[in-house]
Amino acid sequence: MQYHVDGELVPADEATVSVRDRGFRYGDAAFETVRAYGGEVFEWSAHLDRLHRTCETLGIDHGVSDADLRVRVQEVLDANGLDDAAVRLSITRGDRPGTLTPGPAADPTVVVVAEELPRGGVEGTPVWDDPAALQTVKTRKPADAALPADAKTHSYLNGVLARNELTDGDEALLRGPDGHVAQGAASNLFFVDDRGLHTPSEELPVLPGVTRSVVSDLVRSETDVPLHAGRYDPADVREADEAFLTNTRWEVRPVATVDGIEVGGGPVTQLLTMLFDRLVERRHY
Amino acid sequence: MQYHVDGELVPADEATVSVRDRGFRYGDAAFETVRAYGGEVFEWSAHLDRLHRTCETLGIDHGVSDADLRVRVQEVLDANGLDDAAVRLSITRGDRPGTLTPGPAADPTVVVVAEELPRGGVEGTPVWDDPAALQTVKTRKPADAALPADAKTHSYLNGVLARNELTDGDEALLRGPDGHVAQGAASNLFFVDDRGLHTPSEELPVLPGVTRSVVSDLVRSETDVPLHAGRYDPADVREADEAFLTNTRWEVRPVATVDGIEVGGGPVTQLLTMLFDRLVERRHY
Repeated sequence: MQYHVDGELVPADEATVSVRDRGFRYGDAAFETVRAYGGEVFEWSAHLDRLHRTCETLGIDHGVSDADLRVRVQEVLDANGLDDAAVRLSITRGDRPGTLTPGPAADPTVVVVAEELPRGGVEGTPVWDDPAALQTVKTRKPADAALPADAKTHSYLNGVLARNELTDGDEALLRGPDGHVAQGAASNLFFVDDRGLHTPSEELPVLPGVTRSVVSDLVRSETDVPLHAGRYDPADVREADEAFLTNTRWEVRPVATVDGIEVGGGPVTQLLTMLFDRLVERRHY
Repeated sequence: MQYHVDGELVPADEATVSVRDRGFRYGDAAFETVRAYGGEVFEWSAHLDRLHRTCETLGIDHGVSDADLRVRVQEVLDANGLDDAAVRLSITRGDRPGTLTPGPAADPTVVVVAEELPRGGVEGTPVWDDPAALQTVKTRKPADAALPADAKTHSYLNGVLARNELTDGDEALLRGPDGHVAQGAASNLFFVDDRGLHTPSEELPVLPGVTRSVVSDLVRSETDVPLHAGRYDPADVREADEAFLTNTRWEVRPVATVDGIEVGGGPVTQLLTMLFDRLVERRHY
């Protein structure tokens, strides 16, 4: 396996960053995980937009062009002969020793790592083995004023702490500061009740997931299921008719249980899985 | 300069961690910055205690003995001929690719970096040039339920965002979720009014700073100044008779201004500076 570090392809076990790099010292870095299907990157422009927003929030003026970032992702796919993969692109503020205060002189470090995944689309295989077991945890999402939820950064410990709490599940359900359901540790939440499909509102600290957005668009354009963005309690999710999680790797992943209570997928989850797979198939295979 | 990485002394420019290391990917690492005076580490056991607490909060079972950690710090001091220095000791959860969920199999990475500082003690020189210009920022400290304030970790972006806001200051004053003053981006706050000395309560999201603790002990044992831990508004600090910040590098640093309003040091700040310097002198020179 070869990764990209600072503009160069290097063998994976030589792919390193300085211990003084602010991405390591302070989690002071932006990242995106993109999905490649059939050798092409899915929703590149949406990921690029979010990367720009994260860098703007962090004040990282990295000076690497969009085209250059795209080339580095492609070089990692090509160098490793990957058609179906997850690719993680990170931009750190680089090495500026001695002070927490980020200075104007940017020396960014760009890192691209990749990992093979199964084929997607209509004939594809999910990366997960089973539907998710979701567990409400004590760890809360930070308020936007503390760590903006729409910035995807290397300061990801909140998600680690949430996952660390799991005793009987494989994804954590985090509430926001006010107690309303926000998202999974690394996924967005949807659930179905007799009013339609629901997902936590972006007024809450919720990562604006690319898959969340693609699925929402599919709901609106390809189905007549009403889609609501709102404020919900964990009990609403436990009592749902169906629930599923979305992220770049999982795509649409049904939720088997919430806090040990059976919820499961169902016709809406199945429909959106099919619509998502068809979209991927049409675009990339 | 030589640093310590994974048990080995290496030249600083070869001191790296894998791009897959969770300390880099997720800020999933504990750290301490300790001060060496005259070749000896100041308050080692207090830093070690806090490192243990951080690792416990993060669930990092690193398996490196206290004695071994101390040896690595000493080896970095000795290898670089440093008597007066700041030493940063980091323990990451290591390299566990492919999942956010931290697994039981720990492969920790221990990193020790150092930097020369001026002599401390009675004949010492502060590391800062001028008293601090403190500025209240919009960025808030995360609630303990989101990121525990007593854990010192590589997910330090909150402090970076706070410093990034500074327009007319060199340290940010952060409030907690409820609007009460919590701490600086990388320092603890004390201020003086006619009731005595005040510092934000640990009921708020406040890092239990080692220097904060040493200074508090000095106040109680060596002075008759009343010390209060409480809940304060930024206006209380702006209207204070004196204010100062503490951290391992700055020791006791007077605050010149708060939000552009002159506060300055004064007799209590001066007294505690002298008591701190005498303590360091007595112990280490």
